[in-house]
Amino acid sequence: MNELQARTRGSVHVIGAGLLGASVGLGLRERGVDVTLEDLSPTTVALAADYGAGRVRTADDPAPALVVVATPPDVTADVVERALAEFPGSVVTDVASVKLAPFLELASRGIDLTNYVGSHPMAGRERGGAIMARADLFTARPWVVCRDHETPAEALALVEAVALDLGAVLIEMTPEEHDRSVGLVSHLPQVVSSLLAARLVPATEQAIGLAGAGLRDTTRIASSDPELWVQILGANREPVVELLDALAVDIAAFAEALRDPTRSGAKRRIADLLSAGNRGVERIPGKHGSSERFTTLTVLVDDRPGQIARLLTELGELGINMEDLRLEHSPGAQIGFAEIAVLPEVAERAIEGLAERGWRTL
Amino acid sequence: MNELQARTRGSVHVIGAGLLGASVGLGLRERGVDVTLEDLSPTTVALAADYGAGRVRTADDPAPALVVVATPPDVTADVVERALAEFPGSVVTDVASVKLAPFLELASRGIDLTNYVGSHPMAGRERGGAIMARADLFTARPWVVCRDHETPAEALALVEAVALDLGAVLIEMTPEEHDRSVGLVSHLPQVVSSLLAARLVPATEQAIGLAGAGLRDTTRIASSDPELWVQILGANREPVVELLDALAVDIAAFAEALRDPTRSGAKRRIADLLSAGNRGVERIPGKHGSSERFTTLTVLVDDRPGQIARLLTELGELGINMEDLRLEHSPGAQIGFAEIAVLPEVAERAIEGLAERGWRTL
Repeated sequence: MNELQARTRGSVHVIGAGLLGASVGLGLRERGVDVTLEDLSPTTVALAADYGAGRVRTADDPAPALVVVATPPDVTADVVERALAEFPGSVVTDVASVKLAPFLELASRGIDLTNYVGSHPMAGRERGGAIMARADLFTARPWVVCRDHETPAEALALVEAVALDLGAVLIEMTPEEHDRSVGLVSHLPQVVSSLLAARLVPATEQAIGLAGAGLRDTTRIASSDPELWVQILGANREPVVELLDALAVDIAAFAEALRDPTRSGAKRRIADLLSAGNRGVERIPGKHGSSERFTTLTVLVDDRPGQIARLLTELGELGINMEDLRLEHSPGAQIGFAEIAVLPEVAERAIEGLAERGWRTL
Repeated sequence: MNELQARTRGSVHVIGAGLLGASVGLGLRERGVDVTLEDLSPTTVALAADYGAGRVRTADDPAPALVVVATPPDVTADVVERALAEFPGSVVTDVASVKLAPFLELASRGIDLTNYVGSHPMAGRERGGAIMARADLFTARPWVVCRDHETPAEALALVEAVALDLGAVLIEMTPEEHDRSVGLVSHLPQVVSSLLAARLVPATEQAIGLAGAGLRDTTRIASSDPELWVQILGANREPVVELLDALAVDIAAFAEALRDPTRSGAKRRIADLLSAGNRGVERIPGKHGSSERFTTLTVLVDDRPGQIARLLTELGELGINMEDLRLEHSPGAQIGFAEIAVLPEVAERAIEGLAERGWRTL
């Protein structure tokens, strides 16, 4: 018996057999844990079982050590309440992308939350459903586990052991901290991107024809599912409204400074806001967004199969490690660009080596 | 004598020997045109000449067929005026990223603008200077040429011939259309990205630690040069202010609907704004942002040299054409993700083929 099997006493129950629930099931079963499944839809639970995410729970099954609630956010509180009542000796966690609203809802009902530990694996995908589930969905992704001073150490340890065993990077926060954090780094960018993209609807073809990489990047997430986001934003109303209000103040200040450039300090105000943007983007961890630390080479590539692979193979042969890569195509052109980020100290060697091999670097 | 040499009567004069001016010089010289250079800075013009972008103009040189003004936007009108006076028989164009302000400034001075054709090659780079100049900087990039009903056909033809010979994709617009268009597809996203990134400055480390690809994409261009953007935005004040005001109205409406979810139609209002974002992003041409048309495969890759090249080589061997590629690394993880966009009809074959070769596809 491995450690996870021992901790879970061999059994975890998953309620909601969509993408996240089925992925938890697949991951735990791969690690030898018996997973039982339940879902409002008999088709969904049968499908998830067929995919190997677990087996349908029966009345004879013993109580699980852990219940994972993986339902849509708007029913999370109801399902957690029912799970706590049905399995009084089990730890119950959920995977909803907001954490305070379900917690407050449960607390307002006077429910004993000793056995409840909210969590949020940040591993969403564009398309949902058990059919998209994977045992390694959580690999290397942040998994927030919510705790306060009342959370029992054993309950916390169980949820964290599952998250770690599924390959996630563990982060502890209170529900308030979690919701404010995702409000800033996920929900605000979503709203801003959607509203920016919405301004393209009435634009002329001619204007859209001038779109470059900047517009594509800023509006990419505007293609997200509106129905899901209505739920998420509705459940994290206060932090998001506060952030939107603050952004609106900044936009008004920016527009005001731009409107009347003769006013003293107007140019300075604009430059200050743009500089604050520089400082903000530098704070984002990871290889992307860290343009300050890397030199970007723009390489011309023909728009046909195998060109990018050949380019990267040859970079590898030159001993150049690529820190980041972006592709860009101009509409109507037979030529694209690969933007490759490398450490500044190898940039010159990369440019020379690529030139020798016939690549055109801009 | 080739056609471009004949059209330019063998000679083009470039004023301003920075990135764009020196790149025009390099490109034209490669095509056999004699290029003369001038710049306020003797060092800059000597450097550009050393790089092969042309030769320093002397008093004995005959008048050029074309003068290209490639100075910073805030002095464009002055330099164009001087060029028109100094070379009364030459066509004068400029490459500034705003087109109406210099045109109106020149018109208000009562200058005959028959020989002036404004243009805008959309080929900026993050770093400027002659040292970054390349003959193929304009390859496959949009190059807007501004015309109205008074623009003489011959002057227009000369500027367009140069743009096409430098490899650009030609787009004709009036100065008003150009400025409104770049306001929407370039200036507004810049301001929004900067102000969004600025909100990260006071954020906790914990919150920033949850940043994902959405935040990275929406804030990437926030690392742009504030000094340059103060000039650009200041020269395109009216369209940008109008767009910022409209966006502020949308943000206020969104926040209002979110603030009071009990009000009739509040959820519907939020869903409508998010759906408008879906429709807006679908209008953007090119391979990026077209997630609707492609299926995205997420492939796990170890964070070491050569992995991406191997992945792409094997995709090529499978006969799969990659439509787009993005890389993503989670902070602190030794594993990254390659998101590969493919045509929906080959997605299953790609997943199976990659699995057979040992790749893990999420």
